[in-house]
Parts: sequence; C-alpha cells; structure tokens
Amino acid sequence: MRIYDVSMIIHGNMQVYKNKPEKKPVIKIQSTFPESSVHESTLSMNLHTGTHMDFSKHVTEGGKTSKTLDLNRLITKVKVLDLTHVKDGIGPEDLSSKGISTGDFVLFKTTNSFSDNFVPSFVYLSEEGARHLARIGVKGVGTDALGIERDQPGYPTHKTCFNNDIVIIEGLRLKNVPEGTFTMVALPLKIEDVEALPLSIVLLDNA
Amino acid sequence: MRIYDVSMIIHGNMQVYKNKPEKKPVIKIQSTFPESSVHESTLSMNLHTGTHMDFSKHVTEGGKTSKTLDLNRLITKVKVLDLTHVKDGIGPEDLSSKGISTGDFVLFKTTNSFSDNFVPSFVYLSEEGARHLARIGVKGVGTDALGIERDQPGYPTHKTCFNNDIVIIEGLRLKNVPEGTFTMVALPLKIEDVEALPLSIVLLDNA
Repeated sequence: MRIYDVSMIIHGNMQVYKNKPEKKPVIKIQSTFPESSVHESTLSMNLHTGTHMDFSKHVTEGGKTSKTLDLNRLITKVKVLDLTHVKDGIGPEDLSSKGISTGDFVLFKTTNSFSDNFVPSFVYLSEEGARHLARIGVKGVGTDALGIERDQPGYPTHKTCFNNDIVIIEGLRLKNVPEGTFTMVALPLKIEDVEALPLSIVLLDNA
Repeated sequence: MRIYDVSMIIHGNMQVYKNKPEKKPVIKIQSTFPESSVHESTLSMNLHTGTHMDFSKHVTEGGKTSKTLDLNRLITKVKVLDLTHVKDGIGPEDLSSKGISTGDFVLFKTTNSFSDNFVPSFVYLSEEGARHLARIGVKGVGTDALGIERDQPGYPTHKTCFNNDIVIIEGLRLKNVPEGTFTMVALPLKIEDVEALPLSIVLLDNA
C-alpha cells in the first residue's frame, strides 16, 4: 500500500494566506535543559494556517462549529482531479468532463501545490463551480490552495458548499499525487467548538 | 468497518499533566463579525497536551526531533492490551501473558481512560516493563496516561524506549476499545523540528 502524505509542514516561516504575519505559526521553547529536566515547546497558530477544514461559522455569524465534526465524513474514498491546466477560477467547464458523481469527495490538484510560497492569484473554486458540484451532490471538496475561493464578495463558494452540506478542506499538498481514486484518512486536531480544525491527511493507494 | 476515535478532545479546561496551568490550551478569537468578514481563532498549546508522541529530545539534550518522523511507523497494526487491573507500574509480570511478539505495536488500556480528570497516581510503564518490551523488540508503545512513566528519576522508561527505537504515544482514550488487534492510523500535526507532535488517532476494526 502506498501512502501519500498530503498535509503541509508547519514551521515559523511557512506560507500563509495573503502572507499575513498574524497567520504565521509561532513555536517557542517553554522549558529546556539544564534548568529543566525536560525540553518542551508550545505552538501558537491561527486555525486556518496549514492544511485544515472550515466550518460555516468561519463565514457566517451563528454558523456551525467543530461540535458538528463527524470523522466518518473524513475517512472516505476520494477522487483527485488534475486541474493543473486551470489558471483562475475552477468552473463547471473544468469539472464536467471529470466523471464526478453524487456522493463523491473531490480533491483539486492545481498549480497551487507547485510552490511553497503564497501565490496571490491562486487557483480557486468559482461560485459557478461550487453550484455545479452542489447540483451533482458531492459530499466534500479539497483544494491545494489556502482558500477554496478568492476575491468573491460575500464568500459565495464557501456558503454554497456549507448550505449543501459539503465539507471544505484547504491547504492540501497534491503535487506528487496522480489523478485517480484513493482512500483518504483526514484526521483533525479535535479542538472543541471552533470554526476550523487543523488536519493531517494521508491518501492510501490500495491498487 | 468500525472506527474507534481514540484521541483527546482539546478545550481550555481539559486535563493536563500534573494540572499545570501552563499546559492548558488557550483558544482565542483573532477576528470576528461584524468588525471582520470572517471569524477566525487561534490555538496556543504545549505540545505535550492531549494525545501526542514524544521524540527523544524531550528527555535528552541533543536528542532526536520530529525531523525524524516516519508516518509508516504510525500507520500499522496494533494490539490493544487490557491492563485495567494494574494499579501502579506496568511490569514484565503484567505483559508476559499478553502474547507480545517482535515487531508489535502495543497500546495499554488502563484505568487512566476512565477519568476526564488528571490522576496524579496514574498507571505507567515501569522501567522493568520497558526493558521487557525492548527485549521482545516491540516497535511502539501507547498509553492512555498523559505520561508513559511517573516518578522515575532520569526518565528510564522514556530512555529505554528511545534507545531501542520504540515509538512513544501518550494521552490515548481507550475506554471504549476492547482488547484485540486493530489497524491504527495515527496522524501528527507535522510541526518541523520539535520534541513532540500532537496526534489524532483512529483504530480501524476490519473484522
């Protein structure tokens, strides 16, 4: 069985959304030798840094939080779609030839995975693309961008997904994964009652 | 397939080692409505809070860090051992009847899982127990205590494990898991070059 590790490595100088300094993780030493008998560190991090999932409270006042987490939705077959030819928004025209069916969980492999730096013009899922997937009835989407959408006032892609009970995963690393079907195991740091959860994800190829 | 979720839930008032205040996670709102168009939170946490794995730098100056992480060692068959009868240190006498073989990864189900509060007299793996497992040649140990050892000057249980290349997982929740063999998927928050990593873990029962 081949294991594809598709989560981001977390370090103080990693790429973050729009290069905002407050989104960079801070790792500090809390105790160390010889003053202490153990070496221990702390992590401080925005929950939208690195690979993570969003809940609707991220974009909607009074929305759902991680209290609604269901691991069964994150341990599932997924289809990785090669969309490395797309330059801007992923729309229905990019998705319609990909054989997407009701109940699928789809992951977008784009040029976003090819850089370790934040790309302001990152490839994203357009509102029309999200509506197309909602009509089909997918159960989840994942992207290798740090955002599922960009420059769309009111966050219609997020809201279309959440209104149709579609899981959103952001910040994947899919550069080394070929198009195809895999078993995804996406496990969150189970923080109670927040609007996003860091994820660690592997894709298992049982072929 | 049955999925056992065996990681701790992270919240501000969760149990932490020796109830040390500096080990309690702190979750803060970084931006919210209506001042901001998104709601975002931050997490600050000691890396030994909740379910996690240790690397040898935790107890040994110049020891190994998460740079040596190998996911293949965390996606593996495991044996859950019912040790709920043990009151103090887990020793060779508790382990010898459990059918442990070379290459096994063993998880200790103890009374530690039965409480959501930190128990100062928690059940731990004694130095002699660790030496017994090292002689057999296990590849990993996991415990539902927040520490693999307690009150042993110089951390001989940790050091015996690390010197024998045995992975250490702490802070499991095994109350609802029966004794038996499972497929473990333990995925870390992949922080670079630190002495411990938070883990999210499921045990899959394919029987």
